Amino acid sequence: MDFSIRAANVEDCKDIARMIVELAEYEKKTEHVKVTQRDLEQDGFSKNPFFHGIVAEVPEQLRTKDGHTKIGYALYFYSYSSWAGRAVYMEDLYVMPEFRGKGIGKALMSKVAQLGLAAGCNQLNFTVLDWNQSSRDFYLSQGCFDITTSIGYHCMRCEGEALQHLAQP
Amino acid sequence: MDFSIRAANVEDCKDIARMIVELAEYEKKTEHVKVTQRDLEQDGFSKNPFFHGIVAEVPEQLRTKDGHTKIGYALYFYSYSSWAGRAVYMEDLYVMPEFRGKGIGKALMSKVAQLGLAAGCNQLNFTVLDWNQSSRDFYLSQGCFDITTSIGYHCMRCEGEALQHLAQP
Repeated sequence: MDFSIRAANVEDCKDIARMIVELAEYEKKTEHVKVTQRDLEQDGFSKNPFFHGIVAEVPEQLRTKDGHTKIGYALYFYSYSSWAGRAVYMEDLYVMPEFRGKGIGKALMSKVAQLGLAAGCNQLNFTVLDWNQSSRDFYLSQGCFDITTSIGYHCMRCEGEALQHLAQP
Repeated sequence: MDFSIRAANVEDCKDIARMIVELAEYEKKTEHVKVTQRDLEQDGFSKNPFFHGIVAEVPEQLRTKDGHTKIGYALYFYSYSSWAGRAVYMEDLYVMPEFRGKGIGKALMSKVAQLGLAAGCNQLNFTVLDWNQSSRDFYLSQGCFDITTSIGYHCMRCEGEALQHLAQP
């Protein structure tokens, strides 16, 4: 299939916001999405951005019935491992359902890996939901490993009132 | 106990490198530590740093038998959640064994939370090893929750030859 991968720019935020909701629907977590197009514009495309993005695009003749040509994206940011050093974290990887199975997700992930290596990173990290077997199988087929299962890492989070309380001196 | 928390500077990298090894010893993973003092200096204290750090210090009269006054640290970096927006990730939190149980770890974590909130973050994320029950109990007591157990997030990683291979177009 004819598609291209390129760095996201501020004009892509409307489509990225749409696809973030689509991904959350797939993960049955729509109610958790608080991020808006405007948040993405401010947080990703101002000085000292909190994330970077890439988008997958198809030519006009392959657009969806709703007229979309931006049909996949990945968000990533640079991070650090105190053992391995520079790392890149892939926050999201999404391809619209009708475009799956054509190598677009692989191409997006490959691009994040390329960008990470170019920045001197030694690791690509991300998370996957335990019930999402097709994604887990895909990642394992790419040589990734599950460090929750193999080493015992659990993801922890503090937010809302607990975060406010924790921050009290 | 008399201690202070402050932003790490490049002169702290020797002690941070020492404590990274101490933490890896505690986690029984010393062989995984590739990061050197020089890596920390370059990656944390040049333009566009990959991480930030804070250190806990005690007065000279409380120094360890080996002469250390820098007795704890946390590393963190800014990250992004496509659902919740700006986030801060705490990579390491460590206090030397003889200084534990005195509120120093809590003070370090609280400082990371403060810095995150000041930067507009809505989440503090980190990982914990499943067998490290004392740390898990501490984090849960602070209102953090385990999103591996509750939601099913697994941490995934790609590195080494698999990462090089993934990056091939």
